[in-house]
Amino acid sequence: MALLVVGSVALDTLTTPAGKVEETLGGSAIYFSLGACCFDTVRIVGVVGPDYPMSEKRFLAERGIDVRGLTTGQGPTFRWEGVYGPDFGDARTIRTELGVFASFQPKLPESYVSTECVFLANIDPALQLDVLEQINDPRWVAVDTMNLWIDQQRDSVLKVFSKVNIVFVNGSEARQISRKKNLFDAASFILDQGPKYAVIKLGAAGAMIFGGEKPFILPAYPLEKVVDPTGAGDTFASGMLGYLAGSDSELDFESMKRGLAYGSVNASYAVEDFGVEQLRTMDRNSVDQRLEYYLSTNQLEMGR
Amino acid sequence: MALLVVGSVALDTLTTPAGKVEETLGGSAIYFSLGACCFDTVRIVGVVGPDYPMSEKRFLAERGIDVRGLTTGQGPTFRWEGVYGPDFGDARTIRTELGVFASFQPKLPESYVSTECVFLANIDPALQLDVLEQINDPRWVAVDTMNLWIDQQRDSVLKVFSKVNIVFVNGSEARQISRKKNLFDAASFILDQGPKYAVIKLGAAGAMIFGGEKPFILPAYPLEKVVDPTGAGDTFASGMLGYLAGSDSELDFESMKRGLAYGSVNASYAVEDFGVEQLRTMDRNSVDQRLEYYLSTNQLEMGR
Repeated sequence: MALLVVGSVALDTLTTPAGKVEETLGGSAIYFSLGACCFDTVRIVGVVGPDYPMSEKRFLAERGIDVRGLTTGQGPTFRWEGVYGPDFGDARTIRTELGVFASFQPKLPESYVSTECVFLANIDPALQLDVLEQINDPRWVAVDTMNLWIDQQRDSVLKVFSKVNIVFVNGSEARQISRKKNLFDAASFILDQGPKYAVIKLGAAGAMIFGGEKPFILPAYPLEKVVDPTGAGDTFASGMLGYLAGSDSELDFESMKRGLAYGSVNASYAVEDFGVEQLRTMDRNSVDQRLEYYLSTNQLEMGR
Repeated sequence: MALLVVGSVALDTLTTPAGKVEETLGGSAIYFSLGACCFDTVRIVGVVGPDYPMSEKRFLAERGIDVRGLTTGQGPTFRWEGVYGPDFGDARTIRTELGVFASFQPKLPESYVSTECVFLANIDPALQLDVLEQINDPRWVAVDTMNLWIDQQRDSVLKVFSKVNIVFVNGSEARQISRKKNLFDAASFILDQGPKYAVIKLGAAGAMIFGGEKPFILPAYPLEKVVDPTGAGDTFASGMLGYLAGSDSELDFESMKRGLAYGSVNASYAVEDFGVEQLRTMDRNSVDQRLEYYLSTNQLEMGR
C-alpha cells in the first residue's frame, strides 16, 4: 500500500562530537521518505525554495519517491542549524530560518488523495488536520509531534490524536501531553484519545508499543559508534510504517512488534553517519540483513 | 551447584517518592541471597551485630539459606540511610554507620570452601581477593563493585576482574574503570582484564552482556509502578547467577542470555516494593510465571 508523508524539508547544518556538515539534506519528510522508500511507494508532500539543489530533488525521484507533492515556493528553503553535546542528547538550536516553510500549506496532488497509508510528520497540528481533510478514506494514519506544539496548541494535538491510528512520541513528549509522570499512565492517556497504538520512543533505551494486551519493548540497535542523531525519530517511524505499508498489515499487534524492530533497524542507519548519508544507499536487502543481526542481539532464540 | 555470596548485611532506612521504611533488611548479600535462594542452595558470608533481629536471621534460614557464614561481631549492625529523588535515580546517602562492617574480615566456614559458584558482591576489593584465596577451585566466580572502590583502589578492582569469570558493572562504573566514554570500548577494556563476560546494567534501559560473538541486550522488566530501587543490581545478579548455578551451566552464551532474562525478572521483585519485601515470598514458580510474561513483552515469538 502506498505511503504518504507530509512534513518538513530542510537544509541542515549539524555539529556533533564526530564533526560538522553544512547544508545537508534534512527535514522530517526527507528522513522518512528515504527510510521508507525501500519498503513501498512513498509520496512526499513538502515545500522547498528555488535554492534547493536540483540534483537532490532528482536523487529523491531516482530513489522511487513520488515528488509530485514536493512544491517549490517563493523564498529560501527551510534552514536549521543544531549542535549536539558530548552525550548526543537533544541538539541545541543555533539557527532556524523557516523561509518557505513559514507559509507551508500542504496541498495534496490529485494523484495522492487516495493514498492508503499516511504519516503526518512533525508539523503544526492545524496543518496535520488540514491534510486529514484532504485525504480520502485512508487505511491508517500515523502522526508525530513535538514539545513546541504540545506547549502552544495542546488541544489541536489532542484533536489530531483522536483522528489517527498510531501516535509516535518520545518519553518527554508523552509525559508533557498527558501531564502524567509515569509512562504507563502517559500511554493510557494517549490511547484514551482514540488511537489504536501509542509508540513511545526512548532513544538509546529503545522503544515501546502500547495498545496491545501487554506493552512490547525492544532495545535500541546496538551501535558501536554514533555520529549524528538527527532524524533518528523520523527514520524510526519510516522503518515501522514502511514495513506496515509494505506488508499490507491490518495493524494487528504482531505486525506492530515486527514493525518496531524495523524501526530500530532503520534508525541505526540514520545515526551511524551524518544527515541522510547512510539512507541514500540503503535497500531492503541490507535492511533485512541488519534486522537479522539486530534480532540476534535481543531475541533468545533464532526461530523467528 | 551451590552458590556462595560474600557482601554487606545492613539495616536500611529508605525514603523514596512512594514513602519511607526504617531499619529494614538490606545489604548486597541479603538481596542476593533472598533472590537466589529459589534457584539453588545459597551460602552467605557476612557480619551483623547483636542488634540484628533474631527473627530475621531465622527467616533467612527458613528460606533455605545457609547462614553458618553470617557471623555476629562486636558492635552495631551496618546502617545505611538513603533518599531517592522523584526520578528514582541514584540515592542520596543521608547516613552511613559501618558498625561491625568496618572491620569485616570474611572467613569462610570449612563447609563453604568447596562451593562451586561464587558471587563477590560489592565490598572492598582487598576482601574480595581474600575470599578468592580461601575458596577451593570454584567452577565460576562473578563480581560486582562500585564507584568508591574504582576511585580509591582501581588496581585492586582490576586485579579482581582478572581472576573472575563474570563482571557486573553499571554503565557509569564501566566508563569509570575503563576511562572510555563508549560502552562498547568500556566492555572491551573489562574483557581485556580476563573475565569471560562483562554484564553492564543500564537501569531502566535494561542490561547488556558482552563476551559473546555479539552483544546481547534485554530491556528492563516493564513495571507500571516503581517503589524502591534499592538492591535492584544485587537482585539482578541473583536471578542471573541463581539461574546459572541452578542449571549447572558451563557459562555458554545461550545460558548467559537466559540468565539475563532471569536477572531482569528478579530485579522487578526488588523495585516493586520497599526493601526486600517482595523477595520474602518469591518462589521459582512465580519467577517462571513472571519470566513468561516478561519474554512476551520483548520477544517476537513465543516459541522459546
